[in-house]
Amino acid sequence: MTTVEQAEKLILAQLKDYGNETVPFEQALGKVLAEPILADRDLPPFNRVTMDGIAVSYDALQNGINTFKIKATQAAGDEPATIDEPNECIEIMTGAVLPASADTVIRYEDVEIRAGQACVYVQDIKKGQNIHPRGIDKKQGDVLAASGQMVTPAIISLAASVGKTHLLVKKTPRVVIISSGDELVDVDQIPSPYQIRKSNSYTVKAVLKQHGLQADVLHIPDDPEVTKIQIQHCLQNYDVLLLSGGISMGKFDYIPQALEDLQVENIFHKVAQRPGKPFWFGRDKDGALVFAFPGNPVATFVCLHRYFLTWLNATLGLPQQLPVYAVLDKDFEFLPALQYYLQVKLKSNQHGQLMASPVEGNGSGDFANLADTEAFLELPLERNEFKKGEVFRVWKF
Amino acid sequence: MTTVEQAEKLILAQLKDYGNETVPFEQALGKVLAEPILADRDLPPFNRVTMDGIAVSYDALQNGINTFKIKATQAAGDEPATIDEPNECIEIMTGAVLPASADTVIRYEDVEIRAGQACVYVQDIKKGQNIHPRGIDKKQGDVLAASGQMVTPAIISLAASVGKTHLLVKKTPRVVIISSGDELVDVDQIPSPYQIRKSNSYTVKAVLKQHGLQADVLHIPDDPEVTKIQIQHCLQNYDVLLLSGGISMGKFDYIPQALEDLQVENIFHKVAQRPGKPFWFGRDKDGALVFAFPGNPVATFVCLHRYFLTWLNATLGLPQQLPVYAVLDKDFEFLPALQYYLQVKLKSNQHGQLMASPVEGNGSGDFANLADTEAFLELPLERNEFKKGEVFRVWKF
Repeated sequence: MTTVEQAEKLILAQLKDYGNETVPFEQALGKVLAEPILADRDLPPFNRVTMDGIAVSYDALQNGINTFKIKATQAAGDEPATIDEPNECIEIMTGAVLPASADTVIRYEDVEIRAGQACVYVQDIKKGQNIHPRGIDKKQGDVLAASGQMVTPAIISLAASVGKTHLLVKKTPRVVIISSGDELVDVDQIPSPYQIRKSNSYTVKAVLKQHGLQADVLHIPDDPEVTKIQIQHCLQNYDVLLLSGGISMGKFDYIPQALEDLQVENIFHKVAQRPGKPFWFGRDKDGALVFAFPGNPVATFVCLHRYFLTWLNATLGLPQQLPVYAVLDKDFEFLPALQYYLQVKLKSNQHGQLMASPVEGNGSGDFANLADTEAFLELPLERNEFKKGEVFRVWKF
Repeated sequence: MTTVEQAEKLILAQLKDYGNETVPFEQALGKVLAEPILADRDLPPFNRVTMDGIAVSYDALQNGINTFKIKATQAAGDEPATIDEPNECIEIMTGAVLPASADTVIRYEDVEIRAGQACVYVQDIKKGQNIHPRGIDKKQGDVLAASGQMVTPAIISLAASVGKTHLLVKKTPRVVIISSGDELVDVDQIPSPYQIRKSNSYTVKAVLKQHGLQADVLHIPDDPEVTKIQIQHCLQNYDVLLLSGGISMGKFDYIPQALEDLQVENIFHKVAQRPGKPFWFGRDKDGALVFAFPGNPVATFVCLHRYFLTWLNATLGLPQQLPVYAVLDKDFEFLPALQYYLQVKLKSNQHGQLMASPVEGNGSGDFANLADTEAFLELPLERNEFKKGEVFRVWKF
């Protein structure tokens, strides 16, 4: 059977560039930059005053002058004033441009201003103090944010500060979430005693929304002809089909047959993991990818995070996410020869360690449990006993 | 001067219930539940078959029967079939209701089906296998998600499965983000050599968006009358005013005067921290809160995460977030008697420890740095030297 590692490798071999698009910079939040953001001028663009107070020449202080005539008052945004004589100063505000004839700012708290004069109280004044010098953060033309970075609020700020009203970002793949089966009824319906309501599609849609993807949702009834037509339509109109359920070999699962008829190549079927073992992954001749997750909700949730989001980040060109590790906080046993995804709560301890507490549900169909946990602990395939204090990779959701 | 701890306490004393609203369940993602989600029936609602195969009576197997006549085929969503004789079975699909007359499911892989008969190959069959029993996850009326929980994709799924098309959630406060100062020009404008573009408001707006808050944005020019009118309008029409800049005592900062004239009570001004020392917090007589952050972008970013988001979670009734700790990975010195917020990159190590690497910028005005870091390490006020290997609280952004 395909291992988790092999499955990941096979999926990551299917990367594709879905192109770029230009969006207003505020709408770029959460998207991936397809161009660098460059400094349009030095940052700061001028010697910027960082305290309200007076601007003087340091030499004047050195020469024993401690009372200065206020020649002008200069606010942030004002054209800079000038001092002509050593015993003159400019009353100046935070954010203002340091006048060329001054080099030091003394804050209000350290001077007394009376009758147009400022008297300096303190001794300990450093040349250049209370000034954020031009270009010290970045020089004009420097890269502020590189292509391939995820747009964060900090990057939104950088875009605004350099006047990038629009940003070139990676286009995301067009995704359709497909459920199937006549046992599923709509959320607003009362199911018969042997039916259940659709829920997986909503979960998947919500997770994708958290990752900046708007996906369409489709339900396919148990009818072989309709199934084939609908799957064909999706292969032609979407980049990725995310199926939840309908891929087992049961008599009424028409999806495997439709995929075969439509010549979708099966790259692997079944992964040595629980939950999620029946996971089917394939590729249409025109490049559409099919992630067919098992119907049980926890399995879909594991596979979505472990495989689809990993693929999504990679296909958008994001740097690979650094693995996160956590310490198992009690013994756990799992006998089948499958890589187990254990639902855990996480807590940071005083040693800076992430502690993982298993919250066991009633098997992989128990979705209620997921609302109380935060992550899956990935327990290695080749072992059956996992001891308190051992460290394993963790996948947060 | 107010300490960070005192400031937090004073802010958390200003909690208010902003009421509830009903939204379509999919739109509740990221909001806070104001009602519990209850199981409308047992979960699973019936003894649910978890493998494609045949349903039989375990007693029949015990009595040596290993060949069964297929009496009916039953898919998920079908009304359950019935076996009348011990040597009969139902061919049955994943998700189907277990017929009352059967108690065990044998998967396809372990039987051979030929000419309307199923012959069981394997010995090791357990009574009740491949069945997810009715009510084992939750009983009808059980709480699936409690009031006060943040709506996650898992909770969206629970809502769907119990038919909650709409959810009662906490209303979020109405927030306005205010910038001020004639030195700021719009993003699409070319600033003069002594002006800069607005950027703080966009950063704040993006952070709030990540936390599910839609905020309005307002810029106030340097004019005392206009300032007073605008601030008054905001106090009357919003629950929270988030100011960035304009609160120092500079000659052209009209905001402190406007707040005083409008009788906004100052709860504290200045916190023993860097960046963010000039932070001003107050409350209007009618309850509007004013978070007036210093104008420097990193200070605003620190205060927004450290104070406003902490307040927001608390006022919405979310459980207090557990602190996260990280290990400083190199020595660091900070002399002023202020609590320092050090920008760091984070990395999980093989011991499950979160390691924090300082990325020092050029003082608190250096925003470019924030795009390369992920968190602030909160270094205690009472110390000046911080050693590699020591653990401190970390605030992710």
